[in-house]
Amino acid sequence: MSKNYYLPTRVVSGIDCIRENAGRFAALGKAALIVTGGRSAKITGALQDVEEALASQGIRYAVYDKVTANPTIPCAYDGAEAARAFGADFIVAIGGGSPMDAAKAMALLAAQTISPDKLFSGSYLPEALPIAAVPTTAGTGSEVTQYSILTNDAAETKTSIATELIFPAIAFLDARYTESLPFETTVNTTIDALSHAVEGMLSVRASTFSDLQAKRSLHAIASTFPALLIWKRGETQGLSRAQRETLLFASTLAGMVIAQTGTTAVHAMGYSLTYFKHVDHGRANGLLLGRYLAFAAEKNPERVASILSAGGFSNPDVFTDSLENLLGKRESIDPEEAEKYAKLAAKTKNIANGIIPTTTEDMRQIYLDALNGNK
Amino acid sequence: MSKNYYLPTRVVSGIDCIRENAGRFAALGKAALIVTGGRSAKITGALQDVEEALASQGIRYAVYDKVTANPTIPCAYDGAEAARAFGADFIVAIGGGSPMDAAKAMALLAAQTISPDKLFSGSYLPEALPIAAVPTTAGTGSEVTQYSILTNDAAETKTSIATELIFPAIAFLDARYTESLPFETTVNTTIDALSHAVEGMLSVRASTFSDLQAKRSLHAIASTFPALLIWKRGETQGLSRAQRETLLFASTLAGMVIAQTGTTAVHAMGYSLTYFKHVDHGRANGLLLGRYLAFAAEKNPERVASILSAGGFSNPDVFTDSLENLLGKRESIDPEEAEKYAKLAAKTKNIANGIIPTTTEDMRQIYLDALNGNK
Repeated sequence: MSKNYYLPTRVVSGIDCIRENAGRFAALGKAALIVTGGRSAKITGALQDVEEALASQGIRYAVYDKVTANPTIPCAYDGAEAARAFGADFIVAIGGGSPMDAAKAMALLAAQTISPDKLFSGSYLPEALPIAAVPTTAGTGSEVTQYSILTNDAAETKTSIATELIFPAIAFLDARYTESLPFETTVNTTIDALSHAVEGMLSVRASTFSDLQAKRSLHAIASTFPALLIWKRGETQGLSRAQRETLLFASTLAGMVIAQTGTTAVHAMGYSLTYFKHVDHGRANGLLLGRYLAFAAEKNPERVASILSAGGFSNPDVFTDSLENLLGKRESIDPEEAEKYAKLAAKTKNIANGIIPTTTEDMRQIYLDALNGNK
Repeated sequence: MSKNYYLPTRVVSGIDCIRENAGRFAALGKAALIVTGGRSAKITGALQDVEEALASQGIRYAVYDKVTANPTIPCAYDGAEAARAFGADFIVAIGGGSPMDAAKAMALLAAQTISPDKLFSGSYLPEALPIAAVPTTAGTGSEVTQYSILTNDAAETKTSIATELIFPAIAFLDARYTESLPFETTVNTTIDALSHAVEGMLSVRASTFSDLQAKRSLHAIASTFPALLIWKRGETQGLSRAQRETLLFASTLAGMVIAQTGTTAVHAMGYSLTYFKHVDHGRANGLLLGRYLAFAAEKNPERVASILSAGGFSNPDVFTDSLENLLGKRESIDPEEAEKYAKLAAKTKNIANGIIPTTTEDMRQIYLDALNGNK
């Protein structure tokens, strides 16, 4: 079967890259809606850098800062209306996965009328506002993907808009914006990226091109674990700039991977932990990932060994222990929840996308083992 | 300084990928000009696969098969005229670097009028016909670059058209098309790709993203050297399909690298060997590459060590010996030639693009050492 690799986003990276590349905004239009979650864009300095860059190019802009964590469908429509009302030619998304994902849906909805029942159909007119993405966390990879993942109350889970129309035109990677992240957010987002790299290698769409990026991402993320543990023990106050740059590089690489491969069972299972139990998205994946890899190793030991060795882990237990050390005390799950979530996960596209056959019963057991098990 | 990574070409790979993805052509238009060098497109089966795919989509097409090695500026204008006359919506380039580079210039010239004195200006209207590229060698990387390198008789060298307008929209990588290549072409194109990976790591524009691909490419290419040597000794009849796939993967990766970084001194110097002494392009780079790396190692030992270790070479001499074994008896150069070529190379943009300061005198000496030296 032939493989595809497609990543049309221009990736600009480096400290102060927005200021150095302000002229790139002019290619996107004359009026921008800046979409953020409010707080992080301001305290990181990213919003100010974007505003100054837009002003330097004579681009008028407005700020839409009402995106919350796990953004909803109504939020996407609301922002799209704001973009239309302002006459935005393009969108600048600043933040973690939530503002970027919301902004990407807004870019689509601002350029064409799509009713809520068709929002996840994948069938759209070939029109969307161009997007510039500025990540302020190192985890989501949304700055280089064609996905907008929204909380879908009708389906009681998260659902993806997936269309090449919403690949950001440009992503600006400046690790300074991630330096003020607290420990917990740093770990959760890091593990989200790790999950993308791992799941990307367990996808039927993985290729030599995506594997190269996935392995490098795994290696880079694992290289920061010792520093994260030292921070957790309170022996340091955080990560160095070089470590922040490593994590941002790794998370964008992992985003490039899932842009090709999609995610698989772990994300499918994690969504319910987030939707029903309000577990952070990255953490939810992290709680499940080790146990899922141990399960996968029984079915495809060679592939799992290749994943683990890229990160320098000798076996799934070492991997699970490493995550456990970072994530701390696990949430618990009761049998009824495990059954319900497994059934919901089984309905997602993610399951068919994996190379490891995974049944509803398998997932029920993985939920129980991962959250309530001895290890 | 911030870094850019941009690679908008869709890369489809795998045996039989053109047939499996015939529908992709329909997105490019309703009429195609197929541009080839004549022979290779036919004997490899690539032309037949493309014709069948186009026919299956109801796309009318014509074949322009007059591209020669080291294509000239008049050839580019001639093909562009053929594209206009046929009413082509897009171009399908089949072949090694020469047909692909010529086709990319044609795609630009068919969509807008550019006088020969403005051809290399970089200043164009934002219009070019979309391009589908089908490499039949594993070396040039042209299937994923924004360059069209033409023989420029006025400048007595090769000169590049460099514009993002001519990034192919899609590249089809099917290693079957490279299986009939004879030893010499296989080695020369392999070493061209190697040179791209090495020079990409010596560019001021190298980034962590491009280095990842460059190192993987180096590793992959070096892994085929034992098989190439066994073939050279006549103990085998050629490479396996897996080895051909490795080389095609590596050459496309190296193309992705130079799309970001450009090439540096070795390409600048190699062009004169090709222009005046008719040395094959890849071979010309290969003759110079080892000596240039030894020179570079004196100025930036750490970077050169990183390049060599990616390929598993312990030092520049081992690297040079490996190339020497594959390339066989070197051409010679006389002092007047060395001086003339060094002066021409010093005028190219490639020199300023390198991290290793390289003077005209340095290059004169490298020409002499590389071609006439004891090693």
